[in-house]
Amino acid sequence: MTQPRLDVLAIGNAIVDVIADASDEFLDQQDLDKGGMRLIDEAEAERLYGLMGAGREISGGSAGNTAAGIAALGVKAGFIGQVADDQLGQIYKHDIEAAGVDFIVPPSSEVDAATARCLILVTPDAQRTMNTFLGAAQELPAGAISDEAVADASILYLEGYLWDPPGPRAAMEKAIDAARAAGRKVAFTLSDTFCISRHRGDFVRLLDEGKIDVLFSNEEEAKALADKSDLDEAVEWIAPKVPLLVVTRSEKGAIAVEDGHRARVGAQPIKALVDTTGAGDLFAAGFLAGLAQERDLEACLKMGAIAAAEVIQHYGARPEEDLRALVAKKLA
Amino acid sequence: MTQPRLDVLAIGNAIVDVIADASDEFLDQQDLDKGGMRLIDEAEAERLYGLMGAGREISGGSAGNTAAGIAALGVKAGFIGQVADDQLGQIYKHDIEAAGVDFIVPPSSEVDAATARCLILVTPDAQRTMNTFLGAAQELPAGAISDEAVADASILYLEGYLWDPPGPRAAMEKAIDAARAAGRKVAFTLSDTFCISRHRGDFVRLLDEGKIDVLFSNEEEAKALADKSDLDEAVEWIAPKVPLLVVTRSEKGAIAVEDGHRARVGAQPIKALVDTTGAGDLFAAGFLAGLAQERDLEACLKMGAIAAAEVIQHYGARPEEDLRALVAKKLA
Repeated sequence: MTQPRLDVLAIGNAIVDVIADASDEFLDQQDLDKGGMRLIDEAEAERLYGLMGAGREISGGSAGNTAAGIAALGVKAGFIGQVADDQLGQIYKHDIEAAGVDFIVPPSSEVDAATARCLILVTPDAQRTMNTFLGAAQELPAGAISDEAVADASILYLEGYLWDPPGPRAAMEKAIDAARAAGRKVAFTLSDTFCISRHRGDFVRLLDEGKIDVLFSNEEEAKALADKSDLDEAVEWIAPKVPLLVVTRSEKGAIAVEDGHRARVGAQPIKALVDTTGAGDLFAAGFLAGLAQERDLEACLKMGAIAAAEVIQHYGARPEEDLRALVAKKLA
Repeated sequence: MTQPRLDVLAIGNAIVDVIADASDEFLDQQDLDKGGMRLIDEAEAERLYGLMGAGREISGGSAGNTAAGIAALGVKAGFIGQVADDQLGQIYKHDIEAAGVDFIVPPSSEVDAATARCLILVTPDAQRTMNTFLGAAQELPAGAISDEAVADASILYLEGYLWDPPGPRAAMEKAIDAARAAGRKVAFTLSDTFCISRHRGDFVRLLDEGKIDVLFSNEEEAKALADKSDLDEAVEWIAPKVPLLVVTRSEKGAIAVEDGHRARVGAQPIKALVDTTGAGDLFAAGFLAGLAQERDLEACLKMGAIAAAEVIQHYGARPEEDLRALVAKKLA
C-alpha cells in the first residue's frame, strides 16, 4: 500500500459564516433556540438577515474549519464541499486554500443555489445560535467524491451535518465504503443534537456495521445518540460500538475511550471567551492532527483542547494564532 | 428654513474590507508601503488576494465607517456610495442599514464593475496597509446626489478618497455648492497623503474658495497639504483657510483650531491595539456627532478620541461596543 498523499480528507458543508452580535431578547423574539443549529430556506435566510445586526463574513463550515485547523498544525489536509461560482464561493475557496488546505471540488456554475451561509448570532455569553441556509452545499454531487481521492488520505473525516441533504449523504456512504476498502480510517462527528434527532437511525447503523473508527461527540450529542439522560451511561452504551470515542465537555475538558482504555484532559485556560463557534471543530482538528502524527491518546486530547481554546477567544471558527507553535509550547 | 431630516450626510466610496494578517516580510516582497492606501485594478486585486491569507469581510469605506459611527452615537446619519447588485453589495447595504444609517443610493445592476473591496493587510504592529479596487464605487453617478438630499442634512461630510474617480468628484463639487446654497455646513477629510499628492491643487482651491467649514486631517496629511515639514507651521498655514481645522495625532491625541481658538485632547487609554483601520474615520464620527449635538470644541474632540479608541481594539473599522454608552460614561 503506497503512502497516502493526505493525512486527513474532510467532507462537509462549505459555508460562509455571517457573524453578528445579538441580544437574548432578539433570540426570544425570533423564537430561536440558543446554542443550536437549524436549517433555513433562502426566504427565511433573507428575512432573518434583514433583522440581524451588521455582520462579519468569515469562511466556516464544520469540517472545513477542522481541515483548516489540521493544516494549521502542519498536517496535510484536504476538503471536499460544494460552493457556487459566486463572490462568496470565491471567498470560501480563497480562505481554505490560504489556510493550506487542498480544496478538491471547484466552485460550480451548474448549481441552482448560491453559496451556503450560516447566520450566526453571538449573545453576550459568547454562545452561538446558528441558522444555516445550505444553498449550493447540498448540491455536492456523489461523483465529486472519487474512490481514488478517499484512498489517498489516511483518515476520512465526515460531518454529521452533511447527512441532511440526500445527495451528499449518498456520496458520504460511498466514501465510507471506499475508505474501508482502501484500509483507511473513518472518523465521524455527530455535529448537533437536532442532527441526531433527524438521523439517529442512520448514525447507530453506521456504528453497528463497524463503519466508523473514530466518533466525535459532545455531552449532549452522546446522550441523544444513546438515548440516555446520564453521560456515563451514554458513554458505556456507545463505546463498545466504536474503536475510539471522543466526548468533548466544554469547560470540563474531554474524554476518550479506546478499546476499554479511558483518557481525559482538562480544558485549556483562556483569557476571555468571545465566540464559541468552532470549538468542537477545532477540538477535532487538534485530535485528528495528533492521531495522524501517531501521538498517544492523552497527547491527541491535549492538542484538541489547545486548538479549541484558541478559536473561542476570537470571532470566527478558524484559527488565527500559530497553532503549531502553541502546541509545541504547551505540549512540551 | 425647515429643520433638516439628517444631522450628517456622508458621501464616500462604498467598500467591503477584506482583512487579513500579514508579515512585514510579505509587505516587503510585494513592495507595499506600510500604512498607506493605494488604488489597484481588478487584475491586481485578484493577484494580491491570491497571495494573501484567509480574510474576514467587514463593510468599510472611510465615510461609511464615519456614518456608522455617527449613527452609533445616536445622531441621524445618511450615506451615499455606490455598490453593485452583487453579494458584496447586498452585504454592504445590510451592514450600513443595520448600523442605523440611511443608505440613500440602492445597489445597481447598471454598473460595469463589482462592488468595491479593500484588501487590508494588518501587520503584527496593528498597522494597516490598504489596497483598494474601487469597482462600482467609482461609478457613482452625479445624479445620485440630489440637491434636495444635501439640503436635508445639517452637515455634508465628504471623503478625500472619492476625489479620485472623475464622476463622483463632479458629483461632490455639485453637492458642496448645494450645501452652501442651503446654508448647510461642509466637512471634508483629506483621507491620505497619496490622495493629497494626487489632488492637492483641488483641495487647496476648495479651502481658498471658502467652500469647506470643517477640515479633518492627520499630522502627515496636514504637512503634505501645507507642504511644510513642521506640523506647527502646517497648522498655521491651513488654519486661516478654514473656520474649523481638526488634526488627529494618533497616540498623541488631537488638536482643533476654530477661529483662532485652539483646543486639544489626549488619546484615550486602550487595553490592546489590534487593528488601526478606521481610527481616523471614527474620530471624525465622534467629532461630527458632537458638533451636531452643538457641544463645545473640547467635548467634540473627546468624543472623537473615545470613538477612535474603541475601533482600534478590534478588527474592522466600524464600532462594536455601544459608543453612546461609552461617551455617556467617559464624557461625564
